[in-house]
Amino acid sequence: MPKTTPAYDALCAHLRSVGHLTSIAALVSWDQETYMPPKGAPMRAEQSSLLAEITHQRLTDPRVGEWISACEADATLNKKGSVTAANIREMRRDYDRRTKLPSSLVAELAETGSRAQHVWKDARAKSDFKMFAPWLDKMMALQRQKAQCYGVPAGGELYDALIDEYEPAVTAKEIAAVFGPLRKDLTELVKQVAAAKKKVNTSCLTLKIDPAAQHAFGQKVLEAMGFDLEAGRLDVTTHPFCSGFGAGDTRLTTRYRDEKFTDALFGTMHEGGHGLYEQGLPKSDPGKKKGVFGQPISEAVSLGIHESQSRMWENFVGRSREFWTWALPIAAKTMSPKFKSFSVDQMHAAVNTTTPSLIRVEADEGTYNMHVMIRFEIERALLSGDMKVKDVPAAWNDRYADFLGIKVPDDRRGCLQDVHWSFGLVGYFPTYTLGNLYAAQFWEKINQDMPGLKKDMTKGKLLDLRDWLKDNIHKHGRRYTAAELCKKVTGKNLEAGPLLRHLRSKAQAVYGI
Amino acid sequence: MPKTTPAYDALCAHLRSVGHLTSIAALVSWDQETYMPPKGAPMRAEQSSLLAEITHQRLTDPRVGEWISACEADATLNKKGSVTAANIREMRRDYDRRTKLPSSLVAELAETGSRAQHVWKDARAKSDFKMFAPWLDKMMALQRQKAQCYGVPAGGELYDALIDEYEPAVTAKEIAAVFGPLRKDLTELVKQVAAAKKKVNTSCLTLKIDPAAQHAFGQKVLEAMGFDLEAGRLDVTTHPFCSGFGAGDTRLTTRYRDEKFTDALFGTMHEGGHGLYEQGLPKSDPGKKKGVFGQPISEAVSLGIHESQSRMWENFVGRSREFWTWALPIAAKTMSPKFKSFSVDQMHAAVNTTTPSLIRVEADEGTYNMHVMIRFEIERALLSGDMKVKDVPAAWNDRYADFLGIKVPDDRRGCLQDVHWSFGLVGYFPTYTLGNLYAAQFWEKINQDMPGLKKDMTKGKLLDLRDWLKDNIHKHGRRYTAAELCKKVTGKNLEAGPLLRHLRSKAQAVYGI
Repeated sequence: MPKTTPAYDALCAHLRSVGHLTSIAALVSWDQETYMPPKGAPMRAEQSSLLAEITHQRLTDPRVGEWISACEADATLNKKGSVTAANIREMRRDYDRRTKLPSSLVAELAETGSRAQHVWKDARAKSDFKMFAPWLDKMMALQRQKAQCYGVPAGGELYDALIDEYEPAVTAKEIAAVFGPLRKDLTELVKQVAAAKKKVNTSCLTLKIDPAAQHAFGQKVLEAMGFDLEAGRLDVTTHPFCSGFGAGDTRLTTRYRDEKFTDALFGTMHEGGHGLYEQGLPKSDPGKKKGVFGQPISEAVSLGIHESQSRMWENFVGRSREFWTWALPIAAKTMSPKFKSFSVDQMHAAVNTTTPSLIRVEADEGTYNMHVMIRFEIERALLSGDMKVKDVPAAWNDRYADFLGIKVPDDRRGCLQDVHWSFGLVGYFPTYTLGNLYAAQFWEKINQDMPGLKKDMTKGKLLDLRDWLKDNIHKHGRRYTAAELCKKVTGKNLEAGPLLRHLRSKAQAVYGI
Repeated sequence: MPKTTPAYDALCAHLRSVGHLTSIAALVSWDQETYMPPKGAPMRAEQSSLLAEITHQRLTDPRVGEWISACEADATLNKKGSVTAANIREMRRDYDRRTKLPSSLVAELAETGSRAQHVWKDARAKSDFKMFAPWLDKMMALQRQKAQCYGVPAGGELYDALIDEYEPAVTAKEIAAVFGPLRKDLTELVKQVAAAKKKVNTSCLTLKIDPAAQHAFGQKVLEAMGFDLEAGRLDVTTHPFCSGFGAGDTRLTTRYRDEKFTDALFGTMHEGGHGLYEQGLPKSDPGKKKGVFGQPISEAVSLGIHESQSRMWENFVGRSREFWTWALPIAAKTMSPKFKSFSVDQMHAAVNTTTPSLIRVEADEGTYNMHVMIRFEIERALLSGDMKVKDVPAAWNDRYADFLGIKVPDDRRGCLQDVHWSFGLVGYFPTYTLGNLYAAQFWEKINQDMPGLKKDMTKGKLLDLRDWLKDNIHKHGRRYTAAELCKKVTGKNLEAGPLLRHLRSKAQAVYGI
């Protein structure tokens, strides 16, 4: 136990109660998506906003600011590299962000977001960007105000203050420096695949499989991944998600389509990756009053790192030849004997096809990043004022032509497809591709550290991989920033090379290029 | 809308937030019994106590007392028979009860209850009453203190102050006046059945039925009862219960045993009866800020009335010949074709056998009341000091011999069988039999009002019954006391006659006496 002070202990006890309130709110929201009867919805909305209100009151309680100041003034708590120092640094960060926005701006953001979302829905249905444009304009103005309240770092730009909410301590310039080479090479790769014209047989993906059998298969895969089902569950929702309710309780959800079992499988592995991160965080102290639950050190470092864990299990494990060497016979046993008629190579090729497409959420592993990078570039330019709202459709369509080689037929399937901007989610998109980049860079390091991993994977032995991730990433919580963690784990700053090598090697295997 | 004042509106808004917190706590506890993974337990305990703490703070907030006083001083709010007057009366009652106990006593009760429960468990396992005696003595002393803090009504006794928590405004004397004739006649009936010696064939109850089929049958019965499954659910737990989460969301649970399908069926109908009460309370205003949710008027009047609803559906409907005329063919279709080989009379007799037994929770509809009345008499005498703790086993065993004609072989199956006293639940037992008495008295009135009901029941038409209950009982919430409600609905005070007539007529049908 590190030596503490009364102010530090008061802070931790207070944040522990906030942690419980957050867990309760997560349960309330999980129940809403899983088991709540339809007529419970109106009351549930009131319950959720009451919990949010009570939580916000506790988080912005002036005593929190006083306790933090007292802790900052105490040298013994702030020894470089200590848990207490990391906690105090992150508590300050959270408290300042939560208290920096005037409540009038918070209210205007909520009000505008709610109204703009309605307009966006309508505009998308009618494919009418002009309808949505004034709202996007207003939302961007509010986002600029928000960024100014948070404060722009020296030498930085407004966008940095926004992305900081999702990916702390990363700047737009740093992101652009990695996205640049990624996009260049990916554009080339997309062209080569299009030229290859090799057809992949994907009939193994469209077998009709009973949801109960899919569920049994998914549970087997989760067990192999080392997800602790005594400390978690897998349920069914419209949109899959993972929700960590604190120590000992992490809930995953997926959805089953009769005729596309990989939808559920990769969804389960993706959420399972998030779930393993939650189970690996240093909050595993159920019931111990002195545990770190509720403290920053017990929390995930960033959305990008969280996403790296889900993408790694989904794409680097789940879409690998080694995984299917183990999984195919199990699929035949659990889901359908028809899987016996497919080879591992056929399955591997089928789950790794790549085609440029219009809709982000339907894109494959490789081209998905292109969708993200286009959005990043546009929202960054909108925020800085380098791009006008009226020019968004043209800018969008040009980029889809240049980088994906496809023509956008209308704004519904173009710049109106995503809900994010309508309610003010600016700075969020890049975390998806940051997740892929981190995953690839970690994956190369893992395979250096564990030369026997690929062989193990062919036998479904994945627990050493889980333990590596826990020891090198999960257990640190918010002790380091994402960039520091990346350097500490891989010895290098984040770069595009590993993801490009990964995508190239798949294209080679599947399309022979 | 009744005319209100700022103090009244502030009270209602405050109680609405408390209602939401109570609903959230109910969900948290429901999840614990249904879907929570085992390792979530320690954190869940902390979450529940945090919610209890926040709720208690709000309920005992001094502003609540000030608002109530302001409302009481306002004549326009207190017109006899008005909703506002009923609300203010009940708000005062709740606030006073919650603020009357000194926190030192609350803490001692909790501490003693928790320790005594552990000792009780041990003592029961060893069938050693002497081990438990000092704790029961201490608990009774604390209960006397508690009763004194609440205040004993003029001409009343300590017990009245305790039962008031579960069955408001009823006295021990009033209960004894109804229990007296009930016990006398029931003792006689038990003797007659024992003498009849007719054997009932119960093989129809032990068919092996798959839980999924039982569940489908249970859902069909709930639908026929008019339980709104769009505003509720049925799940599986170790101990069945009903939990109303406010408007639009009432959750029932049951448990399935392969070889005793009536266990689940009557459990489902019992909890379904509670659930219909919850769905019929005047809180059905989801989302309307001006609705009565959270106000006393939206709540159940007493445990006895709540229990009358569950017992009516379980025993008066579910164990009737009419119900089985409709249900038997459905059982054959949904659960097993073997049900075709049983007649309605056989089924009716099988679900209505009666035998004196040692264990309350396993007792049949008739003798169950004897178990309750024995406990009532003993706990009342213990509290007043008329009985010493050391004399409990003898008093218990004498009564089981006198009223049920059975010999208690040991205290494990005698006075140590129930957990209630160990954690201070005194005054609760009589509500079980009050429920049966209310149910019988309402049932006679219902059949006077609806002469076609029995015929409807043979066709599974139960919605008129549900509507009668809603109009005459549910919709009033806490507007009247239970006694007032009984008088208003049936024209008479509560009496033993209806329940005795009901039990006698069943004994006649089953045993020919």
